[in-house]
Amino acid sequence: MILTVTLNTALDITYRVRSLRPHASHRVTEVTERPGGKGVNVARVLAALGHEVTLTGFAGGGTGGEVRDRLAGTSGLTDALVPVAGASRRTIAVVDERSGDTTQLNEPGPQITPGEWGAFLDRYGELLAGASAVALCGSLPPGVPVGAYATLVRTARSAGVPVLLDTSGEPLRRGVAARPDIIKPNAEELAELTGSHEPLRATQDARRRGAHAVVASLGPAGLLATTPEGHWRAAPPARVHGNPTGAGDSAVAGLLSGLLDQLPWPDRLTRAVALSAATVRSPTAGDFDLATYEKLLPRVSVTAA
Amino acid sequence: MILTVTLNTALDITYRVRSLRPHASHRVTEVTERPGGKGVNVARVLAALGHEVTLTGFAGGGTGGEVRDRLAGTSGLTDALVPVAGASRRTIAVVDERSGDTTQLNEPGPQITPGEWGAFLDRYGELLAGASAVALCGSLPPGVPVGAYATLVRTARSAGVPVLLDTSGEPLRRGVAARPDIIKPNAEELAELTGSHEPLRATQDARRRGAHAVVASLGPAGLLATTPEGHWRAAPPARVHGNPTGAGDSAVAGLLSGLLDQLPWPDRLTRAVALSAATVRSPTAGDFDLATYEKLLPRVSVTAA
Repeated sequence: MILTVTLNTALDITYRVRSLRPHASHRVTEVTERPGGKGVNVARVLAALGHEVTLTGFAGGGTGGEVRDRLAGTSGLTDALVPVAGASRRTIAVVDERSGDTTQLNEPGPQITPGEWGAFLDRYGELLAGASAVALCGSLPPGVPVGAYATLVRTARSAGVPVLLDTSGEPLRRGVAARPDIIKPNAEELAELTGSHEPLRATQDARRRGAHAVVASLGPAGLLATTPEGHWRAAPPARVHGNPTGAGDSAVAGLLSGLLDQLPWPDRLTRAVALSAATVRSPTAGDFDLATYEKLLPRVSVTAA
Repeated sequence: MILTVTLNTALDITYRVRSLRPHASHRVTEVTERPGGKGVNVARVLAALGHEVTLTGFAGGGTGGEVRDRLAGTSGLTDALVPVAGASRRTIAVVDERSGDTTQLNEPGPQITPGEWGAFLDRYGELLAGASAVALCGSLPPGVPVGAYATLVRTARSAGVPVLLDTSGEPLRRGVAARPDIIKPNAEELAELTGSHEPLRATQDARRRGAHAVVASLGPAGLLATTPEGHWRAAPPARVHGNPTGAGDSAVAGLLSGLLDQLPWPDRLTRAVALSAATVRSPTAGDFDLATYEKLLPRVSVTAA
């Protein structure tokens, strides 16, 4: 079983409007809803690839209930979310039909009490016993200590479970120092962590800070990996157009899936790049297009960096 | 008991953001939620004035559940909402902290089935038996016939219950023809109904179309009433600054409250204008400031129009 952790689970809502104008009133023409948060997206992609996945983190209130109801319908996915008193956050993506652009509104998430955080730590420890890998993904809700990911990385390493960390800012900085097996920052997160805007130098710096392997997602340019076995760049055959939401989460799923299948690094990167590009091509943000994935797999280029 | 009907009940959500920019990502700094829809606002103000109020219409899904949970905490207010399979709509008001302006996103509401509409008509008939007045407020959700308000007006009149209609467009046009006791259009709704932008002429025209009394809300200028007993203008002593959301609903509550208290028309209009201005002055949209209300009551001017 692969365990994914989403401390700030969300109900992702998408609104279509004819044209978004500040200070005007808009009639929403279409509403779609789905469970969200980075770890939830990773879990969904892993389940679609045929892996058994358990999802933990927090869920509460009416929105938490809607998230859990919808997760119950996804095969291969076990809901091990810890209930909290506060309401899980909503994220709202307002799609402008005229321009195709998206405006994002993200709620901060519920206040987590020390007791709820303690209950999560207990649950996490139990779940690790049955896990072959764990992904720690996304932002921290209010009340969770900023060193939370460092604690979760250490617990996973003590249990002998490979751990991937995908977050940003101070939680990433502290988490890296706890020596996770893989981190997957984007270019901006990597620059913030290391102070360097030169990706190869920055990935090497991030390894010195504690990460065993660093896989940086560079948007349309693909992935840059610095690992104990070598440095690689992996890129799709051509620029893929579409909605990049969730592309980074699909890359995380590809890396974990390749780790579980004991693939060499270049093959893990190929899987991650193909999944990521197939997510950009999917009409629904955070899903991947299977035909695009299978077509891209033999065409991803991996070169020594 | 006063009955208020809200066919398109809503969960009104207010987001504060630092500055709303289309196509950017925003962190919401504050989230507030309350039950909404015009008839819900009218009911809340009537309950605050000490009237017994029963609220009906439709509620469904997670949002409908949240609306009902919150209504349960309002004293003087009885929830007689009819459950539906679809989810009640959300409205989102995004307040830009820098400019103070609000951008509004309104979901269309759930699809109402013919069976659900039939169940509502049964419930409405039962509730009318105990009602001393009824207010029909707001837009129609998808699936409800465009002549819905005309039907509801006729049923109320058959039952001998005074009926106030506050809606717009074709539902208003058809509803007026069924001869409601009072309609309360704003200037724009009145012009759309009658084709006239001259308010006094337009209110007289609306009476000829079937309304026994027409009370037009003219924003900061107050109310213009055309009734069988005479024509009046009622205005606050000075322009009131603040958030006008819900001011029209408070005017409806004032008119109904005055009707129940058997006040003459000028006194009903005074109450409606004072409540409306006290709502503009309230920090929360759709609530009224009691001190402002009491201070304004003796200072509203009512003159023959």
